Amino acid sequence: MDALDKKFMELGADSAPGQEVRQDNSALAALTRGENIDGVPVDFSHGDVDAFAPTPGALEAWQEGYDRGGQQAYTEYRGDADIRNDVAARIATFTGAPLTADQELIITPGTQGALFLALGSVVEVGTKVAVVEPDYFANRKLVRFFNGEVVPIPLTYGAASDNNGPDLNVLETAFKAGTRVMVFSTPNNPTGLIYSKSAIDQIAELASRYDVTVIVDQLYSRLLYEGETYCHLRASASCPENIITIMGPSKTESLSGFRLGVAFGSAKLIERMEKLQAIVSLRAAGYNQAALSTWFNEPDGWLANRIAQHQAIRDDLLKVFRDAGLETAAPQGGSYIFPKLPPLIHEPEVFTRLLRSQANVTVTPGAEFSPHTVNSIRLNFSQDHKAAVAAAHRIVEMVERYRA
Amino acid sequence: MDALDKKFMELGADSAPGQEVRQDNSALAALTRGENIDGVPVDFSHGDVDAFAPTPGALEAWQEGYDRGGQQAYTEYRGDADIRNDVAARIATFTGAPLTADQELIITPGTQGALFLALGSVVEVGTKVAVVEPDYFANRKLVRFFNGEVVPIPLTYGAASDNNGPDLNVLETAFKAGTRVMVFSTPNNPTGLIYSKSAIDQIAELASRYDVTVIVDQLYSRLLYEGETYCHLRASASCPENIITIMGPSKTESLSGFRLGVAFGSAKLIERMEKLQAIVSLRAAGYNQAALSTWFNEPDGWLANRIAQHQAIRDDLLKVFRDAGLETAAPQGGSYIFPKLPPLIHEPEVFTRLLRSQANVTVTPGAEFSPHTVNSIRLNFSQDHKAAVAAAHRIVEMVERYRA
Repeated sequence: MDALDKKFMELGADSAPGQEVRQDNSALAALTRGENIDGVPVDFSHGDVDAFAPTPGALEAWQEGYDRGGQQAYTEYRGDADIRNDVAARIATFTGAPLTADQELIITPGTQGALFLALGSVVEVGTKVAVVEPDYFANRKLVRFFNGEVVPIPLTYGAASDNNGPDLNVLETAFKAGTRVMVFSTPNNPTGLIYSKSAIDQIAELASRYDVTVIVDQLYSRLLYEGETYCHLRASASCPENIITIMGPSKTESLSGFRLGVAFGSAKLIERMEKLQAIVSLRAAGYNQAALSTWFNEPDGWLANRIAQHQAIRDDLLKVFRDAGLETAAPQGGSYIFPKLPPLIHEPEVFTRLLRSQANVTVTPGAEFSPHTVNSIRLNFSQDHKAAVAAAHRIVEMVERYRA
Repeated sequence: MDALDKKFMELGADSAPGQEVRQDNSALAALTRGENIDGVPVDFSHGDVDAFAPTPGALEAWQEGYDRGGQQAYTEYRGDADIRNDVAARIATFTGAPLTADQELIITPGTQGALFLALGSVVEVGTKVAVVEPDYFANRKLVRFFNGEVVPIPLTYGAASDNNGPDLNVLETAFKAGTRVMVFSTPNNPTGLIYSKSAIDQIAELASRYDVTVIVDQLYSRLLYEGETYCHLRASASCPENIITIMGPSKTESLSGFRLGVAFGSAKLIERMEKLQAIVSLRAAGYNQAALSTWFNEPDGWLANRIAQHQAIRDDLLKVFRDAGLETAAPQGGSYIFPKLPPLIHEPEVFTRLLRSQANVTVTPGAEFSPHTVNSIRLNFSQDHKAAVAAAHRIVEMVERYRA
């Protein structure tokens, strides 16, 4: 096996969310216990934009973009200037820190695109990158792809705490030892944990002191449950110079089919990201950019209603899993929940395949998020409420059936 | 300057097509001769989708995709299976070689996306890559970004020949010396030269003999002028095992605003490309994928008419430039023309900026395509016919004004 074979084996996407349809499950029959469990299929690997429809007006905004013709089809690589102006102003308000549209913002093909460009702009051969565990599955893979080195930083979750966040002692030790970049998501994917103000301020302070670039993925920062508070790293008093914040309208707003994201922060890094975008995909699809006019610009009450609906699903799923004895942290934001499975007679990855083939429930194996969470499963519960709860009951039934 | 600063300096996108709006031209005034030349602004850096509208039905196909909802928003990373089935069948017919939709095709965010994924799947630190000169500006930059090594292969153009193509002796020497990958476009960007059957067969034979991966960019292979023939590498009798062909509907079909491309060929490489796409941008925008239903499926006579219109513009521009004594090869396919400038009192890059500021004409400097073509300028003549011809006359007038 040559170096590229090895590299791409490590980038394995077989269990990545949405790719389950490509799995070869011919060997599963021999491992199956009992009959299939009927129920409406639920794909928890991503949100259901039929259950939670795209932002009102997004379709019309796209059509207006199409009607504008060439001007909207071909934009600057960093995105249309007028659209960036609007978005930058709204993001400055939302995050509580100023932002210049011309220099400090780029529109990308999805938040994934933003993450790729951000890491590609700061990670080279041998660059040490602090990666929180568990966290979004692509973080580790991206560092590996750019030939950087992952420095794992543990995140404790599930315990009620005013100091939610990564292990700051491990983080400082890593920074001292030459770690140049840190990447993390808050609300955390896959657990829904929100980093506390204290954790954010300390990360900011440490990054400033050790001159570390911080890439913070705030994809879910609008979807906060009752009683939760959120702290934007870029608004922290000690905010480091080299910071990129990433957001996008794919989740809470259900605009995933448009593949839109933004990154904002350091003008120097945004410029690098644009140069990289020039050779990666040129720009986010021109007409799609127009749909951003609806972002942070939704009808009154729309966001509060969307949050309330998700909170109701969260509460029901939490009850189902906890009643069944599955250790499950309460998500503070976002639409992920990350229950832990008890010991089973099969490997967790086989169990998730059985869940799909026998019970019509698709989840993402915990191994995608860190080597230490192989016994958990991640569910994106932005789904039809009733179907999601029924599917959670099927998960519990399957757990009982395959319990070791 | 650290290694990343240097790397991104080399990825400079200041003169890249479409980025001219970001240039700081405050120093130009001191270099300017004479008055401004009036005329309808023409941006030859890319095609004008207002002059040549998107394929009929593309808008409606997109709307049907949007109406399908979640199923179209979230597809496999390599693209929706039904859409791949349709496109694969049409591409097999067009290229004259079979293609399996499930294993050998991926839908990407634009042809640029396909090129990035293809090179990213085969170039690692130190990989030697044969890059034709001149050729598409991103080829060299991509090799540099992946820390590979560019091995330049000269392309002769402008001489009538039955053996159009790169210098095959240089190519074989490069292959013998350990070059692992070759990338090229035909019709060639920026010259419009079409590789002859003989050149294609010999490239195929050499790549097979030396086990070289070939990435062939056929973006313009449908737009062939009267009397020209085209040869698909993948249909060559000696076609190498590791080949990826790249196409897309952004140019001839004017679907650039949808950012769609495809790559097809080696199943092993397509699988790598999908893994890479998973961390680069997940997938081509879901709803946009639906517009592919119009591709290779246009109304009767549509393509012939589009070719005839471009041929008429080509003929007129060629006459304007040749009458003015500018050495200009006749494009055989595609919509690029690459006239050579005489010695001027300013550097060519300054001249192109003056052209833009004084005469409302945007072109791409030849330096983007190879170090040996700094005295040429590239025009994408997929423009309003009358405006394009008038702009060509302004280019000639500016050349006379700044002649050394």
